[in-house]
Amino acid sequence: MLTDKTVRDLLAAFASSDATPGGGSAAALASAAGASLLMMVAALPKTRSNSDEDRAALSGAASSLTGIRDQLTKAIDDDTAAYDLVVGAYRLPKGSEEEKAARTAAIQAALRAATDVPLRVMRWSAQALDAAKTLAAHGNPAASSDVGVAVALLRAGLEGARLNVDVNLSGIRDEAYTRSVAAEVRQLAERAAEQGADAPPAVSG
Amino acid sequence: MLTDKTVRDLLAAFASSDATPGGGSAAALASAAGASLLMMVAALPKTRSNSDEDRAALSGAASSLTGIRDQLTKAIDDDTAAYDLVVGAYRLPKGSEEEKAARTAAIQAALRAATDVPLRVMRWSAQALDAAKTLAAHGNPAASSDVGVAVALLRAGLEGARLNVDVNLSGIRDEAYTRSVAAEVRQLAERAAEQGADAPPAVSG
Repeated sequence: MLTDKTVRDLLAAFASSDATPGGGSAAALASAAGASLLMMVAALPKTRSNSDEDRAALSGAASSLTGIRDQLTKAIDDDTAAYDLVVGAYRLPKGSEEEKAARTAAIQAALRAATDVPLRVMRWSAQALDAAKTLAAHGNPAASSDVGVAVALLRAGLEGARLNVDVNLSGIRDEAYTRSVAAEVRQLAERAAEQGADAPPAVSG
Repeated sequence: MLTDKTVRDLLAAFASSDATPGGGSAAALASAAGASLLMMVAALPKTRSNSDEDRAALSGAASSLTGIRDQLTKAIDDDTAAYDLVVGAYRLPKGSEEEKAARTAAIQAALRAATDVPLRVMRWSAQALDAAKTLAAHGNPAASSDVGVAVALLRAGLEGARLNVDVNLSGIRDEAYTRSVAAEVRQLAERAAEQGADAPPAVSG
């Protein structure tokens, strides 16, 4: 598993010319690091005004961020596994008509899985960006640069995941699926852009 | 060393409420992952037009990216070490006038080191973004989403490092130093914003 490698070895794996791991896993890593930083801020003993309201808001954020971070961490490996299946499907034999049909079906199924993983990374990144607003409003102001870094990483992770959704989606023939995914991708990207624009003043204020 | 930890353990360390590792190390990680992805694209056997010119441009980019990636990887640990020294300096005794003077000097020296590390992360991220242009122009178009993810991560790393420069710089009393750093930070941020604006069309074109 990529997540059991040392950081140094994972970076070396990204740098190697092997097909995987690539941008999809790197995008999931960036978002997982962003969600982890937000968990840190939510866990600090000091809050913005040390009120019960702050503590309740941060504890709610911490609990949802833990789930999001675990899913994003899993996606580092899932994205690579899904892309390996795409590569494998393209290598299937295509001599007979039966082989061609089986290969096409395998490619379509693999591309769909390789679209679903970065689409989920986009969803979780957007959810973590929602939590970042709570942390900016209720968290320890001394950690505002950590919230700012987290927002930058989550937006990069979401944007990187989007590039991977787009690439894989372009090969999928099921039009109902591609239309629905494209609509959700647009929505998630707009939501992230709005949150990014809000974040800096909220964080430093 | 943070870079010898597993990815899972590093994420857990970011999420813990301990003072370090925090946003500075996470920003360096994002940029190191971005530079690594660019190294991968530079190492692919196929290039844009399989010309000697492509191969020469990519080989030059690969060589500079290797150095940049190594420095960014080292900065993951350096940022945490520098911030630990800041925390340690603030904890020094301040009973006598001598103790106060020694503490102030230690804090100023530690803040300067804690500014220099993220400032270097900004410089290397900007250099890697320069290399991304070369890869978009000469690299295998099939890897354009990897270049796009790398650009997103490097811009997030540069932006995150900037937040850390700003926080530490605000405590430094040497005005000649703070003016010079502030000017370089503005320049690097502008350079990154221009490159980011250029990158998407170049990558997908």
